[in-house]
Amino acid sequence: MDSAAVVVVVQVVNVVKGSAGNNELQIQIWPLPKDVSHGSSSNVVLSIPKDFHVSTKHDDVSGILRDAFSRLLSLIQLDHAVYPPTHFLNSSSSLLLGLNVVVSSIDQELRYGVDEWYKLSIPSPAHLGNPVYASLEAKTVYGALHGLQTFSQLCRFNVKTKTLEVHMVPWTIIDEPRFSYRGLLIDTSRHYLPLPVIKEVIDSMSYAKLNVLHWHIVDSQSFPLEIPSYPKLWNGAYSESERYTIEDAKEIIFAAMLKDEGLTYWLKSMSQDMLVHANGLNVRGIGYPSLWPSKTCQEPLDVSNEFTFKVISGILSDFRKIFKFKFVHLGGDEVNTSCWTTTPRINKWLREHGMNGSEAYEYFVLRAQNIALSYGYEIVNWEETFNNFGNRLSRKTVVHNWLGGGVAKKAVAAGLRCIVSNQDKWYLDHLDAEWQGFYSNEPLANITNPNQQKLVIGGEVCMWGEHIDASDIQQTIWPRAAAAAERLWTPYDKLAKDPKEVTGRLAHFSFTVSPAMPHHLVSSIAHRELTYSINCTYRGALPWNGWGGQPCPTQTMNQS
Amino acid sequence: MDSAAVVVVVQVVNVVKGSAGNNELQIQIWPLPKDVSHGSSSNVVLSIPKDFHVSTKHDDVSGILRDAFSRLLSLIQLDHAVYPPTHFLNSSSSLLLGLNVVVSSIDQELRYGVDEWYKLSIPSPAHLGNPVYASLEAKTVYGALHGLQTFSQLCRFNVKTKTLEVHMVPWTIIDEPRFSYRGLLIDTSRHYLPLPVIKEVIDSMSYAKLNVLHWHIVDSQSFPLEIPSYPKLWNGAYSESERYTIEDAKEIIFAAMLKDEGLTYWLKSMSQDMLVHANGLNVRGIGYPSLWPSKTCQEPLDVSNEFTFKVISGILSDFRKIFKFKFVHLGGDEVNTSCWTTTPRINKWLREHGMNGSEAYEYFVLRAQNIALSYGYEIVNWEETFNNFGNRLSRKTVVHNWLGGGVAKKAVAAGLRCIVSNQDKWYLDHLDAEWQGFYSNEPLANITNPNQQKLVIGGEVCMWGEHIDASDIQQTIWPRAAAAAERLWTPYDKLAKDPKEVTGRLAHFSFTVSPAMPHHLVSSIAHRELTYSINCTYRGALPWNGWGGQPCPTQTMNQS
Repeated sequence: MDSAAVVVVVQVVNVVKGSAGNNELQIQIWPLPKDVSHGSSSNVVLSIPKDFHVSTKHDDVSGILRDAFSRLLSLIQLDHAVYPPTHFLNSSSSLLLGLNVVVSSIDQELRYGVDEWYKLSIPSPAHLGNPVYASLEAKTVYGALHGLQTFSQLCRFNVKTKTLEVHMVPWTIIDEPRFSYRGLLIDTSRHYLPLPVIKEVIDSMSYAKLNVLHWHIVDSQSFPLEIPSYPKLWNGAYSESERYTIEDAKEIIFAAMLKDEGLTYWLKSMSQDMLVHANGLNVRGIGYPSLWPSKTCQEPLDVSNEFTFKVISGILSDFRKIFKFKFVHLGGDEVNTSCWTTTPRINKWLREHGMNGSEAYEYFVLRAQNIALSYGYEIVNWEETFNNFGNRLSRKTVVHNWLGGGVAKKAVAAGLRCIVSNQDKWYLDHLDAEWQGFYSNEPLANITNPNQQKLVIGGEVCMWGEHIDASDIQQTIWPRAAAAAERLWTPYDKLAKDPKEVTGRLAHFSFTVSPAMPHHLVSSIAHRELTYSINCTYRGALPWNGWGGQPCPTQTMNQS
Repeated sequence: MDSAAVVVVVQVVNVVKGSAGNNELQIQIWPLPKDVSHGSSSNVVLSIPKDFHVSTKHDDVSGILRDAFSRLLSLIQLDHAVYPPTHFLNSSSSLLLGLNVVVSSIDQELRYGVDEWYKLSIPSPAHLGNPVYASLEAKTVYGALHGLQTFSQLCRFNVKTKTLEVHMVPWTIIDEPRFSYRGLLIDTSRHYLPLPVIKEVIDSMSYAKLNVLHWHIVDSQSFPLEIPSYPKLWNGAYSESERYTIEDAKEIIFAAMLKDEGLTYWLKSMSQDMLVHANGLNVRGIGYPSLWPSKTCQEPLDVSNEFTFKVISGILSDFRKIFKFKFVHLGGDEVNTSCWTTTPRINKWLREHGMNGSEAYEYFVLRAQNIALSYGYEIVNWEETFNNFGNRLSRKTVVHNWLGGGVAKKAVAAGLRCIVSNQDKWYLDHLDAEWQGFYSNEPLANITNPNQQKLVIGGEVCMWGEHIDASDIQQTIWPRAAAAAERLWTPYDKLAKDPKEVTGRLAHFSFTVSPAMPHHLVSSIAHRELTYSINCTYRGALPWNGWGGQPCPTQTMNQS
């Protein structure tokens, strides 16, 4: 039993639910796992040596996990210089030599609904001083990545011993998400986001176990994406530089598929709000003006022109080559059909086809749906489509709520799936929307039938791009998106009834664990507000407050 | 002459000073080099292949340059996918196969005043289609790094051909800085900055050819640095996490010395304002309270206590092991000696030594100077010391201006060196200070004697930390610090008399070249203000304006 490779099984001493006990023994994992048990003693400390290794039987899986973990470790350390811990070991410290990972399926294909379950075990040493190994089980590599993320949140950098440590052993964590669709929308039409920024967003999503990036690429304001079938479309970009080539889009997919960045598994959803909502295809009059009703009345696109649907088909055909996700987002919100009825040519066509404006809107949406279906996509449409002609939508439609509460209940009652993004709670561009509201927003509110509950596949927080850009997108997303992420991950009965109960843990995620966040998030503006609600004065009044849970300094402000 | 390795010498066609000509032929280098000549035709394009190589005869130098250059290239590309350009070559395009670097001294030691000269030549092909090599000469590796930085600013990512290109060949650039000290102050006492953030600041400094990071580590508000000789000092950190170990400090030096990050050569200056200004040694009453005059009157440190000077000596002794720079900053500003005169014990000591408060302040500063000198440092002191007892300061003192204009003239007239940081123009924490003021602030104003001019060794822009933190420090520094950087680099007669003349070039540096900046700087708040002054409406009114020099869109705002 003294062998370094033995995983010691120790009785679980203390099962903790939610926030608990004194500060030393609080669980600091975000989002809170399904089941957690840990030791009650803070006397036993595991120290992580520099050569800590993550190993599996499958070499390829192992590589992905190793890369992911080495990245997580460096984030936890925040670039602090780490000592090999051997010479610090004392009677209350043992070495944690490695993590053995067992993934039962080596199938690495990323699909919507892939199994995300994992089980993480970190033992106590049989005798103090004995080295130990931790173990991680999962059905897929994606579950294993969640487990690694959780493991990294159990590690602390001890600035005095200059080592990484795990406290409160033994740990047993069994975990899986409540909802399969846990999304974040970004919007590159209102402000272009350089590729590294998008990759950073993807990285940070994984820390909160969000798994769907809804990339709202184009809209009325700009068309930054290359479409090989219609190469004039991206003339609608803001500038030469503010564009995504097809290869760029592939690189984003690649990063997200964790071959490269090693963390997130996202599932791509591409928004085409332009189709009916906006004149994205004709931004600034470049591109293909024949898509317009007229030069002076440019949106929605000409419903009477077959070329409109030819272009939509070309775009979806090009998309299908790079965006392999189950869903495509066809928009369909905020449609004003007055350009159709006031343009004589189109008005004539409407009369010939016996349609008024709203009937033509339905015709447009349904025809676009059929094109998407023909390319093998299922469809997401904004809720206006459901609100107007829900019973005629394809049964493969997911209704995307945004206007407010209530539509989810109606959509699932009608047998359609639904994604919740009610703007009053989950729009990140509403800067006055507080994290408490993000936390408390319940996707299943007023839905009691279990079969209908299953049709709510999840939710999405939306970072519309009008008022943010590369300089502040991350600071605006976090930590509020993390609050929603726990709502979407953690079992309902483990969620705090009062968000106040989780303030400390969320602050820990945003700061102490935030080394696992892109570093400029360590102290985001939103984080400061969060901190304010914990223990310190808002920095507007006391600019140099520390955030580590120490008492706040009481000095008044000097000029440097 | 058709060999791929031949460097073709072509007559310089067009010498351009400042901003010039049409948009196509504008020089977009920041800061503007001393001498620039380039071709007048935009028809000849050099395409940079993926295997473009940087080579020298010295293997070690070559490694540093290669690392630096590969990092610069990836920044220029902003992660865009790049094609090998061969299949895009047409009659007006040739390959630029590599850059041959000749560094005459292989001495890589970084000293204040190291030679920064370089000469960069990019030829035209003898015949269209012929491949060419560029060449770079320098006396030191640090000069060569500047040359690489300039070279990277000549490269453009062409989103249509998906390649990197150089236009307007042939180029000949001969360059060196006007001032040897081109500094930026950061302040980790008012807000802790994680190591990756400091490294990012160092990186971005090099893009503007700034070369001194003044790291104001400690002050009244927190003491985040480990001092092995007095291990209780960093108990004054905000929290366990918000600390720098000695190894961390070494890592920062290492990064800055470009073994790691490959770009900046900085020269370290460590500020110890705490010595007389503040109670940094006793933040929050932890540490060594016997340094205080009394429990209720804590600063400046007890001048009557030998222990005070013992601690200062211990700190400087520890510093000397890691901070090898020529200068140490001993602070000395904003001293109020009332705690000395009102504390009976100290007041008694003052009377016994025949000193009043201001004489004791002088005694304190001069004694600290002597300690620093004994460790081989030269000294920087804030201007108050000069203003009060300038004639008794060590002749090895550099007077650091901050209060306003005028002191530089007096300091150099007294034969002392001076660094200019007048707060009305060069304090970055003054958010209402505009880039035009940063650009126009002339360190040699009213100093006409050439020998006295030489005593102004340069200037420093100051990013005091009360109101910024990791989330916005870079956005607050740039692009304003770049405006000052050109003032400190470019020959006086090439500087624009009216900052308006350089707006476009600075915007280019902040955006088009900004891929060479940390990517979240691409569109910083300050940049938006800059852009506003160019051609678009401020995004407060029109949130989705593009920044690439295209006409601004005219749509009004929609809600997503």
